[in-house]
Amino acid sequence: MKLTNLLQKAPHHLPILQANFGLERESLRINENDRIAQTPHPTSLGSRSFHPYIQTDYSEPQLELITPVAGSTKEARRMLGAITDVATRSMNKSEYLWPLSMPPQIEEEEIQIAQLDDDYEYQYRVGLGQRYGKLLQSMSGIHYNMELGKDLVQALFAQSDYEELLTFKNDLYLKLAQNFLRYRWLLTYLYGTSSLAEKGFLKEELGLVRSIRNSRYGYVNASDIQVSFDSLDQYVADLEGYVASGQLSAEKEFYSAVRLRGSKRNRDYLTQGITYLEFRCFDLNPFEPVAISQETLDTVHLFVLSLLWLDDMEQVDQTLSQASELNNRIALSHPLSALPAEADSQTILTAMKELVAHFQLDDSYKQLIHTIEQQIANPSLTLGGRLAEQVLDQSLETFGRKQGRSYREYAWTAPYALKGYENMELSTQMLLFDAIQKGLHIQILDEEDQFLKFWHGEHIEYVKNANMTSKDNYVIPLAMANKVVTKKILGQAGFPVPAGAEFSNKPDALRYYQLIRSSAIVIKPKSTNFGLGISIFQEPASLSDYEKALDLAFAEDSHVLVEEYIAGTEYRFFVLDGHCEAVLLRVAANVTGDGQSTIRELVEKKNQDPLRGRDHRSPLEIIDLGAIELLMLEQQGYTPDTILPQGVQAFLRRNSNISTGGDSIDMTDQMDKSYKQLAAQMATAMGAWACGVDLIIPDLTQPASKDQPNCTCIELNFNPAMYLHTYTYAGPGQRITPKILDKLFPEL
Amino acid sequence: MKLTNLLQKAPHHLPILQANFGLERESLRINENDRIAQTPHPTSLGSRSFHPYIQTDYSEPQLELITPVAGSTKEARRMLGAITDVATRSMNKSEYLWPLSMPPQIEEEEIQIAQLDDDYEYQYRVGLGQRYGKLLQSMSGIHYNMELGKDLVQALFAQSDYEELLTFKNDLYLKLAQNFLRYRWLLTYLYGTSSLAEKGFLKEELGLVRSIRNSRYGYVNASDIQVSFDSLDQYVADLEGYVASGQLSAEKEFYSAVRLRGSKRNRDYLTQGITYLEFRCFDLNPFEPVAISQETLDTVHLFVLSLLWLDDMEQVDQTLSQASELNNRIALSHPLSALPAEADSQTILTAMKELVAHFQLDDSYKQLIHTIEQQIANPSLTLGGRLAEQVLDQSLETFGRKQGRSYREYAWTAPYALKGYENMELSTQMLLFDAIQKGLHIQILDEEDQFLKFWHGEHIEYVKNANMTSKDNYVIPLAMANKVVTKKILGQAGFPVPAGAEFSNKPDALRYYQLIRSSAIVIKPKSTNFGLGISIFQEPASLSDYEKALDLAFAEDSHVLVEEYIAGTEYRFFVLDGHCEAVLLRVAANVTGDGQSTIRELVEKKNQDPLRGRDHRSPLEIIDLGAIELLMLEQQGYTPDTILPQGVQAFLRRNSNISTGGDSIDMTDQMDKSYKQLAAQMATAMGAWACGVDLIIPDLTQPASKDQPNCTCIELNFNPAMYLHTYTYAGPGQRITPKILDKLFPEL
Repeated sequence: MKLTNLLQKAPHHLPILQANFGLERESLRINENDRIAQTPHPTSLGSRSFHPYIQTDYSEPQLELITPVAGSTKEARRMLGAITDVATRSMNKSEYLWPLSMPPQIEEEEIQIAQLDDDYEYQYRVGLGQRYGKLLQSMSGIHYNMELGKDLVQALFAQSDYEELLTFKNDLYLKLAQNFLRYRWLLTYLYGTSSLAEKGFLKEELGLVRSIRNSRYGYVNASDIQVSFDSLDQYVADLEGYVASGQLSAEKEFYSAVRLRGSKRNRDYLTQGITYLEFRCFDLNPFEPVAISQETLDTVHLFVLSLLWLDDMEQVDQTLSQASELNNRIALSHPLSALPAEADSQTILTAMKELVAHFQLDDSYKQLIHTIEQQIANPSLTLGGRLAEQVLDQSLETFGRKQGRSYREYAWTAPYALKGYENMELSTQMLLFDAIQKGLHIQILDEEDQFLKFWHGEHIEYVKNANMTSKDNYVIPLAMANKVVTKKILGQAGFPVPAGAEFSNKPDALRYYQLIRSSAIVIKPKSTNFGLGISIFQEPASLSDYEKALDLAFAEDSHVLVEEYIAGTEYRFFVLDGHCEAVLLRVAANVTGDGQSTIRELVEKKNQDPLRGRDHRSPLEIIDLGAIELLMLEQQGYTPDTILPQGVQAFLRRNSNISTGGDSIDMTDQMDKSYKQLAAQMATAMGAWACGVDLIIPDLTQPASKDQPNCTCIELNFNPAMYLHTYTYAGPGQRITPKILDKLFPEL
Repeated sequence: MKLTNLLQKAPHHLPILQANFGLERESLRINENDRIAQTPHPTSLGSRSFHPYIQTDYSEPQLELITPVAGSTKEARRMLGAITDVATRSMNKSEYLWPLSMPPQIEEEEIQIAQLDDDYEYQYRVGLGQRYGKLLQSMSGIHYNMELGKDLVQALFAQSDYEELLTFKNDLYLKLAQNFLRYRWLLTYLYGTSSLAEKGFLKEELGLVRSIRNSRYGYVNASDIQVSFDSLDQYVADLEGYVASGQLSAEKEFYSAVRLRGSKRNRDYLTQGITYLEFRCFDLNPFEPVAISQETLDTVHLFVLSLLWLDDMEQVDQTLSQASELNNRIALSHPLSALPAEADSQTILTAMKELVAHFQLDDSYKQLIHTIEQQIANPSLTLGGRLAEQVLDQSLETFGRKQGRSYREYAWTAPYALKGYENMELSTQMLLFDAIQKGLHIQILDEEDQFLKFWHGEHIEYVKNANMTSKDNYVIPLAMANKVVTKKILGQAGFPVPAGAEFSNKPDALRYYQLIRSSAIVIKPKSTNFGLGISIFQEPASLSDYEKALDLAFAEDSHVLVEEYIAGTEYRFFVLDGHCEAVLLRVAANVTGDGQSTIRELVEKKNQDPLRGRDHRSPLEIIDLGAIELLMLEQQGYTPDTILPQGVQAFLRRNSNISTGGDSIDMTDQMDKSYKQLAAQMATAMGAWACGVDLIIPDLTQPASKDQPNCTCIELNFNPAMYLHTYTYAGPGQRITPKILDKLFPEL
């Protein structure tokens, strides 16, 4: 190994922080009696034979949440949060995830081995249970995977004395692995939280310690398994020897705090190279809903980089054997005890500081080091120290229940959202939730643009705005975006659309007056924006009023539409693949009196609905009491201080938009089937796959047919919001996003 | 009939002008020797078995150009212009359309009966030739189809004494037909232009007359065919009698100046109703490229409406028999002679005036009446009168040649455009041209939005911007519209794209400097508009310059891209359906010296290219000499008055956009096949059907492959202009629009 001073010689501008990360978190499902759940793996969570993000570990209730590879710790943790959110909301609502590494009180017979399709995996687990005991298998942890950035490795290689990149990379990762094992005691000290075995878990009584998982009582191999980290060749030879002798059932049964990754067989590293490392020593942090904090992630990142700053190790196996002893001692010491004298934290802290200085990392990294120093000086600041305060009657069960239940509650708050992705459109959040649940691979290609990639095996689908997919052909949404074209196509196909005409100049439009002088009409710019330039005449207009309305419309657009005004109630029909999936009625912002409250109080009360928020990031919007609302009230003879009589409805807005506080009412079940069929026929005639059909229906009691429509289509919407139908002010609500995925991936 | 005073009693606001129109124009193809063409019907013009717009009439060279139904005379005439344009440019380039109703000198054996697939139609023509002589069949005319508007007919019916709409409509159209035959002599007077039979055409010597076609020498039935117009029943009975007796070979062999339309069999009018009328008396107007003027179309429209203003006719057959005599007399009179005394123009003129006044039509209609009055007062103002001046040696051949050749020249001017549709995008004009040529039905659903409908039988296709079709799926063009998403998809598929990153804040972007401090880079807003906020560093940037560039970019967009700068030449590959159809090189606006001219003179000369115009309505743009161009010249040490040495190239612009005067060079044939394949593979990997692939190629002599691309893809364009490839500054040019149609309608 020739890596000493490699970083020290590197230029300051080296992209030292460039790395990829992946997290795997295990956690037990706990039932309403706070015992380990006896229910099978949730059926909504796709199949464990392929699910990329949600698997089971040893036992049926032990979930394993796996993030995809992320370019930053932040992104990895965000994804872990989303997967946790999906897992939590896919479980029986009375269940929750146990927030501690150590299980609650548990009997051996409560532990059911994961019911996997793969018989080898099942038998492997049976064997582990026999060798280590099933209780031990119910401990949970977090694995932290890290790959150094491609540009970083390339730059380091370029300045090294190595001739082959493969050898260089293997040495790089081997050095990291060696030093990680040497200094892992520091992580045990800082982050150890498997502090207390509940009654009956261990034969011995350990009392309160830092980390049972990281001690010899944890999930470790028999003491006669001693794998050398001195060289990669020796490492591979040792492992193969133990498997050949039957001391290990498989290479993967070797439990080390660090594992080489990238190939299934260890021997392949010699020819293919190590791709990344898996650090397996992290206990669940019960103070965090996702069981690991951002600070821990970044501290570990810096810690790992600092391991490279250190000189190459001499007498590797001997050093690591001592380090293992030290780590065991620290793991089994009381969380409030100080580090033992032989725990040399200065070397690694100095390396961290020098690295931060050399590469001019920003102050947040200095702050991370400062925090470690404080935690070393004061054990009560470590996670274990903080957890010690929560022990009650020699148990952490009460604390574990409190935390686990509060995290479940957090997951169910705003269930329309996907935690961590609340800045995206609601329908996209819902679709991402469904995709993770179903077990599709997901990638957000552009977060701002709501552009997603989903795949399963070789099958890739792209989705934008949750409903723009490969299932619609390009020109049809473009047709729907054009009101005139839509009307022509629907009209030519024999469907009811408002009569009307388009004009590019006022004289032609004035001449048209002859035709509409006795009709109710709407005059509007061809491309309407925010309703500007629209005039509605529910009674026939005079020529001068007609002319004024034309002037208003032509001020907004070079083309103006004059259309017949259709009286009736507007309903939104959501049509997917020729079938009407949902019907929505939108009612203008309103409150209904109780004979005691003022309108202002009624509005405040209505706004407390958790479905109401701002900026389309909740299914309903806050009702304002601004100028428009006050005017609207005034027209009804009210002020905000009017006490509204029992049952009397006051409107705050004239328009029924949800965005201005309107109510959404799911009418799917009540709507006569004939209208749903007609709406579906319209979408089909248009050639649309996903489509919102807006029908004005004067009388719901009259059925619809193509010959006697009893309704008029005023618009087809090529980007209809799906979330509106799901979380409604009234009615059961309809989930549409899962149907999108079912149709995109019929093979699942 | 109870229609007297129907209009007089109608309200002023009645949509009296509402009507639909269709035109059919016959015309002979003439060869370079100015004789009737002996070539077959142009093969590019689809198949006459279904072509909706371009058919052959009696003989193989006699084209019949047929417009679709139009809502105005203007629209019908515009469409006739486009069809004429397509027909002219589909013919052998040495041929042209004869602009006169009377053919040039012609021998019976030169007239080859149209080679139609339908044997009945062929045999029918053989029979006609035997009965009337083939010479007579080579006369051409225009048929003017007119249907009263639906709202108009409905309103008139509502105020009438009729109980059934069918009877009412039949009476309405019968009255129009009767009065048309009564007053057709006025149209013969005004618009007769079949004035002179060239030598050998007729046995008799008629000299110069108004209209041979409209006289007894024209294409009329034998004198013993006398069909009554007194009632529809009688009309039908008469026709059926003549067919039964063999005096007519078919009902359609009855040649009247007006024909009832809407059903194949006349008897069906009794139960189905007449839909519209066909007025067949119009000679070709040789002063108009489309053979009929807007003024004539509108005058006839007004004339026909006025026929309804008149009282119901008494003694119909007797009146019409006299009218026929009068019409024959006027048709055979000298074009400069006055109307005979018994031609009562006052009645119809008064009707026209009263109608215009009653319905408050605008002044243009008064002007039309005024023009008729002037033409009645002065025969030299009639079309026949104007044509009389063109007679040379008792022949109109010289005039016919001159006009016909000039119309051909007009059609070939700006061959990239479709006459009458020059306001639409060039690629759309080309596609419309191709569709008419191919024999697809076309409808412009939205002219401003470039939205077209094409159909053949039941098969409908919509097209926007000429390349947005049902063949692309919706989400892929949306992906291509997003630079970041495109790069990710191409990159993940293993294709070369510029390395880079996206930033939503400046600190992150500044930190990235470490990675690119020694590279050539481009910094740009994620959504670029007009190139604002883009900085290019062909040499590595200093940190402060990098920061300044970031500020510029963030000023334009909340997201900024930092990408590796790729050196080389940019080429546009047009890929359609997995195949590269064209390759284009764009060169910045430039001139090359001749050692004598100033740069200003060179620019002026270059701008004379008919391909150069303004606002993307020509394939190339005018080169300006504005501030940017002057600065660019100055940087090269030039002024507009510099005389540029022979062969020296001066650039007027740095950017190679065609829109700022750049040159387009078709490189399709020169480009190495490997690059075309790679571009096609990229489009396929993206899932795009129609797509512009922009590759930067440093060295054209190096072949490309996926492993060794030797090029970088900097953009995929979802709306690539097709016309750019067709009419190029240099190179042969590639027609892409026909391939779009071939793929949309593979059955044709």
